[in-house]
Amino acid sequence: MTAKNDMIILTAGYCLPEPFQSSLITDGGIAVDGDTIIAVGTREQLLDQYKEAKHIHQPDGLLMPGLINTHTHAAMACFRGFADDLPLMTWLTEHIFPVETHLTEDIVYSSTLLSCAEMIKSGTTSFCDMYLFAKEVAKAADSCGMRSWLGEAIYDFPSPNYGDLENGFVYMTELFETYKDHALITPATTPHSVYTCSPELLQRVSRFAAEKEALFVVHLSENKAEVETCMNQYGVTPTEHLNKLGLLQANTLAAHCVQLTDNDIRLLAENRVKVTHCAESNMKLASGIAPVPTMLKEGITVSIGTDGAASNNDVDMFTEMDTVAKIHKVAALDSTVMTAEETLHAATLGGAKALGAEDRIGSLAVGKKADCIIVDFNQPHLSPVYNFPSHLVYVVKGGDVTHSMINGKMVMENRTLLTIDEQQVKTRMGELARLLNEIREKSRKTE
Amino acid sequence: MTAKNDMIILTAGYCLPEPFQSSLITDGGIAVDGDTIIAVGTREQLLDQYKEAKHIHQPDGLLMPGLINTHTHAAMACFRGFADDLPLMTWLTEHIFPVETHLTEDIVYSSTLLSCAEMIKSGTTSFCDMYLFAKEVAKAADSCGMRSWLGEAIYDFPSPNYGDLENGFVYMTELFETYKDHALITPATTPHSVYTCSPELLQRVSRFAAEKEALFVVHLSENKAEVETCMNQYGVTPTEHLNKLGLLQANTLAAHCVQLTDNDIRLLAENRVKVTHCAESNMKLASGIAPVPTMLKEGITVSIGTDGAASNNDVDMFTEMDTVAKIHKVAALDSTVMTAEETLHAATLGGAKALGAEDRIGSLAVGKKADCIIVDFNQPHLSPVYNFPSHLVYVVKGGDVTHSMINGKMVMENRTLLTIDEQQVKTRMGELARLLNEIREKSRKTE
Repeated sequence: MTAKNDMIILTAGYCLPEPFQSSLITDGGIAVDGDTIIAVGTREQLLDQYKEAKHIHQPDGLLMPGLINTHTHAAMACFRGFADDLPLMTWLTEHIFPVETHLTEDIVYSSTLLSCAEMIKSGTTSFCDMYLFAKEVAKAADSCGMRSWLGEAIYDFPSPNYGDLENGFVYMTELFETYKDHALITPATTPHSVYTCSPELLQRVSRFAAEKEALFVVHLSENKAEVETCMNQYGVTPTEHLNKLGLLQANTLAAHCVQLTDNDIRLLAENRVKVTHCAESNMKLASGIAPVPTMLKEGITVSIGTDGAASNNDVDMFTEMDTVAKIHKVAALDSTVMTAEETLHAATLGGAKALGAEDRIGSLAVGKKADCIIVDFNQPHLSPVYNFPSHLVYVVKGGDVTHSMINGKMVMENRTLLTIDEQQVKTRMGELARLLNEIREKSRKTE
Repeated sequence: MTAKNDMIILTAGYCLPEPFQSSLITDGGIAVDGDTIIAVGTREQLLDQYKEAKHIHQPDGLLMPGLINTHTHAAMACFRGFADDLPLMTWLTEHIFPVETHLTEDIVYSSTLLSCAEMIKSGTTSFCDMYLFAKEVAKAADSCGMRSWLGEAIYDFPSPNYGDLENGFVYMTELFETYKDHALITPATTPHSVYTCSPELLQRVSRFAAEKEALFVVHLSENKAEVETCMNQYGVTPTEHLNKLGLLQANTLAAHCVQLTDNDIRLLAENRVKVTHCAESNMKLASGIAPVPTMLKEGITVSIGTDGAASNNDVDMFTEMDTVAKIHKVAALDSTVMTAEETLHAATLGGAKALGAEDRIGSLAVGKKADCIIVDFNQPHLSPVYNFPSHLVYVVKGGDVTHSMINGKMVMENRTLLTIDEQQVKTRMGELARLLNEIREKSRKTE
């Protein structure tokens, strides 16, 4: 076999191509041609087969698929620690909403770029986003080479971005048009929720999604208040409401799914709805604990999202996995539920399936896109090693990731970002944070 | 004022001497003479006052008190990820116990040193330990200059270390004798629990503790099985049992305190018992969620412990704080409980008080021992900053700590350990892990 210039071999002391200890390859990795994995094997095999390829080897590292964050609001990085430990309505109405109305393209772009920097540096290679000014989110993701599914948040009331709803559909159409053939960016439809969107709006967005063959991403049953509101207004749970509207479909990605009835779970399973589980945000906002073990038992695809940095307060998928594996054990008072492998699966192959991309990402396999990371295992907290999925879920932190490749392109080497000017992004965010604080102060004085 | 050779000024872009945002000093730090803090102030003030002192300054850092881990079994680092996601009794009887009987002084020493390396690298400067071969734990802590409270686990059945119980008291006596005037190491009494120690043994250990003016550290009400066993055997809860024996005292440090009745909480409060809360271990072992907000409301001193790496699986106090702040919000379905400042307090001043050392450690104040760390805030996940306690609890990971000083002596600079040969410790642990695995395999075959 001949080697081409853009061929690269990426190997490490250990390679875990799938989220199972049984898949472990000692001293192995992948060969990549362009954006695609063309071989998975031992270092010896790969070097023998692709003699002229460029070779990166990390003897103390573990090579694995990049993590997939299926629910975030990347641009909310600017609200990290802006206000905490408050009642939900105080937090929203006195801190977030008054400032969100003053968001600009610049703020959303800069804040998304900051979140991308954090995501890459903590091992995430793909994310699914819902926010305002989605074109800016796309620009930021595009500029740093992250794989993303993203949409403009749609709801009944006027948006700080597009104003009236009709303009929202114009904006969405333009977003889909701009990125229709993009290698990394896939537009999604993102109606906010059943409590902010009328039934007609939800159905209109769903028709738009069907036409574009896009995801239909929606917040669902995040907390008790949402369920009560829906029961009062429509006499059914939010899940039943979506079902009656014909909106529980295979392309539906439901975020949170915390307060579910047994019937809700049955409906989600029957209709092959995908779920994105945001454990830490649900804990911090006191929303509840999603019935993930039950959903998994019913065959529902469960993936993991960090939610935005405003309610987490980071987008570190490794520490999120740790929380996911632990919270369900204590909720069930059963230490055998949500094993390390199940959790790692949710953050990789589960995420890929949730996004309808299991043929392209989520594991290291021939024919898939080359999205992978290397974790440095030569550290006290990762010593000794008996089982890799255990350490990846219970011990590794985002800061242990040293290398990241997305779509065959290195985006981080030895913790240096190659596609983002990190210092510039942080400096700009500092300036914007002062501005956001001033806006909050002003809005308080005028009240 | 004159400067001496062993005087050092430690400053950073920000200094948080106490666990409250209101204590923040911009561009400030501390002056240290020998082992003691002699001034806290702005960099300008300190440099002006102590002109000849050595000066370390980290412009992008936050200087703060070192974290205090009030419950761990440091030497169990060798069992990190040894077995996970199993029923408690399977985990103990098929994995941990068969191997623990083969522990040696060497294993405990090496494993403790590994845990100390991890603790220093993740911002902990003091820890409270209970395990076997406590003299080896002490030697390891002494060799790397960590502050510790530690004891030999005492129970009715023969110990892999000291054999018969009488030898245990001889061992304890020697431990106390060896370290009676040590600057950093304080021996403690550590009877294992009410289900492994007879009433007579618990009282005998308590008398020993009173004689030595030492802590009485005991596992208490960790899970439902423990409570049921105690109810069956003595007709009362474990807390009531200790109370009847006269063992709820101001020097009692109770670990876990998960399954408590209202009366238990009242008894702990009335008797000024201190509590060490191990949220992540309690989650992973499916023990339950300790009623920490209620305990705090009743005026109980609550501190934070990671428990051992076998059930966590790390000893990172920063990610532990994150979990503590979040788990109580979701348990109470109230986002205002366990604020960032309350959580940071538990990990610093609360820890100091739990150990009876609030006059010496837990905050940066004149006259206290110089135990402090610097956290690197020049990172995407810590940008922007509105509130420091929020970031320290919800975002900072142990890996963000760059410098550590214990008792006036630098033990880490720019993430390089100065008192531990990190590579040697990790290599030795790799060898020991293979040995432990072999022991496990053999014990399985002989069953």
